[in-house]
Amino acid sequence: MTTHPETPLLDTVDTPTDLRRLKPDQLRQLADELRAEMISAVGSTGGHLGSGLGVVELTVAIHYVFDTPTDKLVWDVGHQAYPHKIITGRRDRIRTLRQGGGLSGFTKRSESEYDPFGAAHSSTSISAALGFAVANKLQGKPGKGIAVIGDGAMSAGMAYEAMNNAEQAGNRLIVILNDNDMSIAPPVGGLSAYLARMVSSSEYLGLRSLAKRISKKLSRRVFSGLEKAEEYARGMVTGGTMFEELGFYYVGPIDGHNLDHLIPVLENVRDSEQGPILIHVVTQKGKGYAPAENSADKYHGVQKFDVITGEQKKSAGGPPAYQNVFGDTLAKLAETDPRICAITAAMPSGTGVDRFARAHPDRAFDVGIAEQHAVTFAAGLAAEGMRPFAAIYSTFLQRAFDQVVHDVAIQNLPVRFAIDRAGLVGADGCTHAGSFDVTYLATLPNMVVMAAADEAELVHMTYTAAMHDSGPIAFRYPRGGGTGVALPETPQLLEIGKGRVIREGTKVAILSLGTRLAEAEKAADALEAKGLSTTVADLRFAKPLDTGLIDRLMRDHEVVVTVEEAAIGGLGAHVLTHASDEGLLDAGLKIRTMRLPDVFQDHDDPAKQYDEAGLNAPHIVDTVLKALRHNSAGSEERVEEARA
Amino acid sequence: MTTHPETPLLDTVDTPTDLRRLKPDQLRQLADELRAEMISAVGSTGGHLGSGLGVVELTVAIHYVFDTPTDKLVWDVGHQAYPHKIITGRRDRIRTLRQGGGLSGFTKRSESEYDPFGAAHSSTSISAALGFAVANKLQGKPGKGIAVIGDGAMSAGMAYEAMNNAEQAGNRLIVILNDNDMSIAPPVGGLSAYLARMVSSSEYLGLRSLAKRISKKLSRRVFSGLEKAEEYARGMVTGGTMFEELGFYYVGPIDGHNLDHLIPVLENVRDSEQGPILIHVVTQKGKGYAPAENSADKYHGVQKFDVITGEQKKSAGGPPAYQNVFGDTLAKLAETDPRICAITAAMPSGTGVDRFARAHPDRAFDVGIAEQHAVTFAAGLAAEGMRPFAAIYSTFLQRAFDQVVHDVAIQNLPVRFAIDRAGLVGADGCTHAGSFDVTYLATLPNMVVMAAADEAELVHMTYTAAMHDSGPIAFRYPRGGGTGVALPETPQLLEIGKGRVIREGTKVAILSLGTRLAEAEKAADALEAKGLSTTVADLRFAKPLDTGLIDRLMRDHEVVVTVEEAAIGGLGAHVLTHASDEGLLDAGLKIRTMRLPDVFQDHDDPAKQYDEAGLNAPHIVDTVLKALRHNSAGSEERVEEARA
Repeated sequence: MTTHPETPLLDTVDTPTDLRRLKPDQLRQLADELRAEMISAVGSTGGHLGSGLGVVELTVAIHYVFDTPTDKLVWDVGHQAYPHKIITGRRDRIRTLRQGGGLSGFTKRSESEYDPFGAAHSSTSISAALGFAVANKLQGKPGKGIAVIGDGAMSAGMAYEAMNNAEQAGNRLIVILNDNDMSIAPPVGGLSAYLARMVSSSEYLGLRSLAKRISKKLSRRVFSGLEKAEEYARGMVTGGTMFEELGFYYVGPIDGHNLDHLIPVLENVRDSEQGPILIHVVTQKGKGYAPAENSADKYHGVQKFDVITGEQKKSAGGPPAYQNVFGDTLAKLAETDPRICAITAAMPSGTGVDRFARAHPDRAFDVGIAEQHAVTFAAGLAAEGMRPFAAIYSTFLQRAFDQVVHDVAIQNLPVRFAIDRAGLVGADGCTHAGSFDVTYLATLPNMVVMAAADEAELVHMTYTAAMHDSGPIAFRYPRGGGTGVALPETPQLLEIGKGRVIREGTKVAILSLGTRLAEAEKAADALEAKGLSTTVADLRFAKPLDTGLIDRLMRDHEVVVTVEEAAIGGLGAHVLTHASDEGLLDAGLKIRTMRLPDVFQDHDDPAKQYDEAGLNAPHIVDTVLKALRHNSAGSEERVEEARA
Repeated sequence: MTTHPETPLLDTVDTPTDLRRLKPDQLRQLADELRAEMISAVGSTGGHLGSGLGVVELTVAIHYVFDTPTDKLVWDVGHQAYPHKIITGRRDRIRTLRQGGGLSGFTKRSESEYDPFGAAHSSTSISAALGFAVANKLQGKPGKGIAVIGDGAMSAGMAYEAMNNAEQAGNRLIVILNDNDMSIAPPVGGLSAYLARMVSSSEYLGLRSLAKRISKKLSRRVFSGLEKAEEYARGMVTGGTMFEELGFYYVGPIDGHNLDHLIPVLENVRDSEQGPILIHVVTQKGKGYAPAENSADKYHGVQKFDVITGEQKKSAGGPPAYQNVFGDTLAKLAETDPRICAITAAMPSGTGVDRFARAHPDRAFDVGIAEQHAVTFAAGLAAEGMRPFAAIYSTFLQRAFDQVVHDVAIQNLPVRFAIDRAGLVGADGCTHAGSFDVTYLATLPNMVVMAAADEAELVHMTYTAAMHDSGPIAFRYPRGGGTGVALPETPQLLEIGKGRVIREGTKVAILSLGTRLAEAEKAADALEAKGLSTTVADLRFAKPLDTGLIDRLMRDHEVVVTVEEAAIGGLGAHVLTHASDEGLLDAGLKIRTMRLPDVFQDHDDPAKQYDEAGLNAPHIVDTVLKALRHNSAGSEERVEEARA
């Protein structure tokens, strides 16, 4: 049981309106209480901790100075917004974070007017804030756009595209660069090194000097009555920064945990007639909670934990995670194949590329949050004879769709796509679900699309992909732990476009792609128990289809059901299209396709999500039974209507 | 008839190997002949002219200095590569450019070993060159990666992502920034302004100073024997540029038409042990051809033209282009609706947004080559009550797929997607074909997807989209001129998810989406002539489907054929999925889906492309007749096999 901290001041603050009634010298206490409350809440729910701890003071300062929700505050990625949620009317639900029916772990428009724009993928905030700023300007309404974006998110191209367009918003746009020198993984790339140089080279200046510089730069009055705080002030570098070259007024770097600096700087920026302004704020991820500060990843994402010790609840053990099976398999294959290399876009541990990197550091590439570059870089590697694996979550591969089409598929280059987090993802919710990859990949000429039914299959598919030099190949697998099957000693080379029959029956055929295979087998047991002889096939390939197997199963069975953890347009659509092309439906076939529903499913327990999606064994059984019943009834109806 | 220019020196140069045998003082003449040959060739074929004219000297210099094809030269976008094609073994086919079976208008791997990486979308070159550089480094092979990228292409996020990762390639990577201060449209954004400042503020320095600076910077010997050219040298600014902040050694700006500067600078860069290096080259689009130099768009893309006068062949007149119908309609709607605004990503005239911008400059936004930003910016505008139209070609919208999913569809924000160049696009070929949008959009929850059968329908759909405030909506239409139907005085508000019946028959039903409707009607005429009573419906919506209409047509007709100019996973897949969901196929239905074939079709005449795709009236007739024949035969086979 978690005890709640004492928070007398925070208890008086339900919304930013309450916050703005406080005196400036009360804000330090409020921030401390807010931090304690957040640690307590995440201790009981798990979730993103380090990022939120780093922006407690920033959250307080922004809401204190700016007129939210009229001013539109957009938190990039949104996983650092827990303190923001607590002081924007959602404290009573903060211990429901990431649970079914509870608060989202990200910002979400439907939760609060203080979340004007939802986010969960990175680097969208400047574009969105610019949209708000311009819309309000056009409509003659008040309201600035304020983006808070991390240094990691700044490595993504879309942040740069937005900065390149910022000038049009004038003083309506404020970008707060939250520089904590790490996102999820250690920072990579030229930008990161540049920011580090800016921070390390800047002198510590007195507040008076800071005020003078801002004053000069923004043609503003100097702050008043702050000389006392002078000795705590951190200086700023001015002139010639990259951000200024792109059209911003640059202010910073400033200490993001010092409210005595944050408040006056934000006030000055708020009242400036110049813009757009970029404020470079330096924060510490995990700030104020020793276990997080001392951890390598700063408690980026945590399980429930003991607030006193910081000890996280162990997960139950169990089979290895898919990502690790992939990483280990690839590392092993690379021992004898110098052409294999691996690319991750800022997710080394999430993709298992960290394991590959430990064994083969020269052939592992973390490109930062830069999926577009990752894919085309892989295409270049492939064109020069390497065997690159682009290991990217399904939802993030969407960022590189054009590169998959234009640089890989059209040129038929053998880039291997290791697609983690395919299908539903539980607590992260719809923004992170990998629902669309089968559809958006299988529609492409030249592409091979596989899905692993379990972690042994993932081993085979990793090997098969490595050996596939004639064009692009993708294989998808889910988030989390495997099914517990034994891992093969030797990986098997799968024949491209061939499925496997798991059990052979005569009346019902279930054609599964990927991880719903276990449910398909359970469904088959249940159907057999009802006297319905059932075939189960694992198609393995959404493209090319195993048309030989599919045709045979259609011919020999009364009911055919496809099952996949993917949205409409995937396996089911391809099977139906093939069948109609060949006239296999002409004489009638009870065929049904089971897939993800046509909604964005909210975060919940994975089990409940599958239930909601209708992709568990009982749903398969139901679908088969309904199809069987529909058989005669449907025909009768048809006949009657035709006569009418 | 075009007369060929006299090109005695160029006649001796078939490949770069020949070129490298020339003396430096012969290169000026070679460049002049190459320019004349290119003007002559494009005069007879049409195509991209201005960009190629701007890089004639650069093309000669690069191939003279570097060891192509061992060094991997990647032309960004590829449409400036005509001079490159002429001196890399393709001169004999240069007058087949963009014609069926002829040379591609872009770089293409299958054409030549001198095209190591195909390109046609912008901003991919640095990532690809980095891939080549790293692959060669890992394999211990010679070969640098050389990217030539325009200033316009630098505004795209993926170029920035690549620059942020460039350091790892060391001196294997060379980026040549071809700064002509315009891509297709006038430049926009902070980067462009920054580059202009760099160029205008740089002094003219003597070659000795240039040499000294390069020498100091790259720890290289100074050039030898070039003092004579000193008075022609253009200086360079050094230190503190944005590119240096991202980890590059910056050299420039230098005059891209002066071979006496280009050659020694490239030689020094080639031999440098430091890197990566960015060379900032200033060129003039259309250089050396007066009609191009004097034209506003520098003859970016031209029809066949008279080489002496520069006069382009008029197109035959005919109906207005779809893009203009869209732009004019939107401009008209915006007269009474202050919430309507339009966004283009560097394609103002290609999308018709230029027409909107002339009428409503405050509400038109050209964001540069930045589709990701364009879509999320539009989402921000929509969230604040505007009615934004993101007008983006189908193929380029692929760049923003994640933003469509994450920022628009998940949040159900009413962004309007005006999708031009949907379907096949003729001479531009597969890189520009808009084949996948129906599939990748209709798979998304909340999305509405329409396709216009003609330009009158486009007027209705533009209006319908403007009025659709409950979520995202997309409408697609093809490249080129309309069908010639009368444009409606008053646009019609279409009911979401409702199609229309064009003609009513009893035996065959053709369900068309978009522009193949005319062919469907022709096919219906032909079928009627054979005594087959035919219904033709224009479904208008790929999502949501008009299930009422579809169900009725399936019930009442013996053969149902869907027709669309889109890849697998689109309308046909959705119709089949719906039909199988509802058991409408249980008792048998001769249903066929006609769609784009599962190949990337090469550039050709549009008419031939449709023929190759099998989407003309005779193909529809064939499909129907085969289905009718298959009816009994298929059933018989089925019975026999079941007995066997």
